[in-house]
Amino acid sequence: MRRLRDIGERGLIEWITRRLDEGEGASLPPGDDAADLLFDGRLIASCDMFVESTDMPVGMRLRDAGFKAVTAATSDVAAKGGVPIAYLISLMLPSDMLFEDFQELWTGLEEAARLYGGRIIGGDLSSGREIIIDVICLGAADRTISRIGARPGDILAVTGEFGLHAAGLYALLSGRRGDPLSEKLIEYFSRPIARVKEGVELARIGAASSSIDSSDGLARSLHELSRLNDVGFIIDEPPVSREAEEYAEKYGLDLFDLVFYGGEEYELIVTIKPPLLDVAREAVEKAGGRLIIVGRASEDKVIKVRWRGEWRILEDKGYQHFVDINKKGGKGY
Amino acid sequence: MRRLRDIGERGLIEWITRRLDEGEGASLPPGDDAADLLFDGRLIASCDMFVESTDMPVGMRLRDAGFKAVTAATSDVAAKGGVPIAYLISLMLPSDMLFEDFQELWTGLEEAARLYGGRIIGGDLSSGREIIIDVICLGAADRTISRIGARPGDILAVTGEFGLHAAGLYALLSGRRGDPLSEKLIEYFSRPIARVKEGVELARIGAASSSIDSSDGLARSLHELSRLNDVGFIIDEPPVSREAEEYAEKYGLDLFDLVFYGGEEYELIVTIKPPLLDVAREAVEKAGGRLIIVGRASEDKVIKVRWRGEWRILEDKGYQHFVDINKKGGKGY
Repeated sequence: MRRLRDIGERGLIEWITRRLDEGEGASLPPGDDAADLLFDGRLIASCDMFVESTDMPVGMRLRDAGFKAVTAATSDVAAKGGVPIAYLISLMLPSDMLFEDFQELWTGLEEAARLYGGRIIGGDLSSGREIIIDVICLGAADRTISRIGARPGDILAVTGEFGLHAAGLYALLSGRRGDPLSEKLIEYFSRPIARVKEGVELARIGAASSSIDSSDGLARSLHELSRLNDVGFIIDEPPVSREAEEYAEKYGLDLFDLVFYGGEEYELIVTIKPPLLDVAREAVEKAGGRLIIVGRASEDKVIKVRWRGEWRILEDKGYQHFVDINKKGGKGY
Repeated sequence: MRRLRDIGERGLIEWITRRLDEGEGASLPPGDDAADLLFDGRLIASCDMFVESTDMPVGMRLRDAGFKAVTAATSDVAAKGGVPIAYLISLMLPSDMLFEDFQELWTGLEEAARLYGGRIIGGDLSSGREIIIDVICLGAADRTISRIGARPGDILAVTGEFGLHAAGLYALLSGRRGDPLSEKLIEYFSRPIARVKEGVELARIGAASSSIDSSDGLARSLHELSRLNDVGFIIDEPPVSREAEEYAEKYGLDLFDLVFYGGEEYELIVTIKPPLLDVAREAVEKAGGRLIIVGRASEDKVIKVRWRGEWRILEDKGYQHFVDINKKGGKGY
């Protein structure tokens, strides 16, 4: 059972260096002070810090933590219409961490990077009291979609159902394992997928007037779009995950909360210019995704939701760093 | 006395967003999920994680911590011949941090970014148990200098004197303040400068066969170059800071240790192809820097140092993460 302190910084860097990729047209070898690549066009960059004590619920596997950290940074690039090309990974790790556990973590990082098509080309390594994974995603975009641009009348759409990840977090924290439903939810929670293809298609055809990812929770992200664009939203029966519904019924959870205030879901929330709706839907479907219409932007700056036939006003709730504790969302700026 | 928990994540992001720059030709507004810029050529990227508990000695001001964090990431880009163009800043901050202190920290980040000519265009924000500053530096380079390429006979040169920062750290930790020498050393320690112009010039003229920065300590960096290039070095009386010498005499410190095993100095250590030495020296001087010859690369894989007339073998010592504790170096990969 070797720990990182037995391997040492150098041994660890050597191990990592052997697994690093080179950027396109790189002149520097893996493991040099910095990484390089040839690039021509619009570069899009994001970073997302995954912190063990706030982002890693008890019971979450390190491999999944690595996967999720890469997904979070990727999702910010995807929401703007970018395709990941390269990642840098800044790690802080405790010296008593098992080398085996570290390898699991790195495998998760690689799995996600490979899925999204970006190469891990460099990073940094520090020792510290807990695990911190800062993933830097560098991507390319021909066109981008800002958070700003939504107008009253635009169609509000999302790329998937909601509630799954919040239910998965509950399932994980409850410690109830073994039944197929819980396992499925935990799997979803542990392996969220960033909507890269969907974001690229929406940006390419210029159909979206604004876009944001739902990593801070559907409610928080909608309120952010509302605030930035000076619009409200009318939402008619948002798409709810069947598994989340089943789980909520089984354990008496509030499904509305799971759907709107959960977070850690990496769907895209976009507003679509009405004349381009069909084009947008087709493009996203062609890319293997879904574009689900959930409502429209309104002049009235309130967010109204029809939920099981009944209209509600959506509160601006969700995790806020520094104010709330324990669970977090993680917002780039 | 407002603390971050009183401002909240949103308030803080709003404050930061107002101070963010846009990248060249950006299409996304500051504060969006990701940042973008137009780029054409060789992109060079590094990140460096500054951790309060290991990198911030008691007595260090937050403004200096910010400055130093940016310098560390910049130095990795500089050592490869890159010019910073943009920074992302990933922060983890404790919720009981004073807003005033946060502002100091941010001011230090901005001061350094401005000095090096890069814009702070985005980042990420988390709450946590201590301060963590992950600085991502994106730069441009026409030509780069790898760590690999040194050959026996190449001239070994550095861009400054050594011992200053190690002495400054001692001065800071000793708590002896007030005398001009201590204050000067602490100032140097707190505000190290990355050798951007020197790195760019050396890369541009193609005179350097290898390059590394000395952030892990002169001895560690020399051993790294030795190991990677299968060469040794013969070093003849390395340049020592006069202030470090004075301080070492005054307080009975081992000057050799300060010079070789200190770390946190951001000088460049380069090997120069002999026929290009004069060209290299002139180019660096024209850029306002200095290129100090300290010896040459040898076939014999040992590092020998003439120190005050006496020859010594340089040990491979220096801070190593996970193995050593307290003070660190911080090495990118």
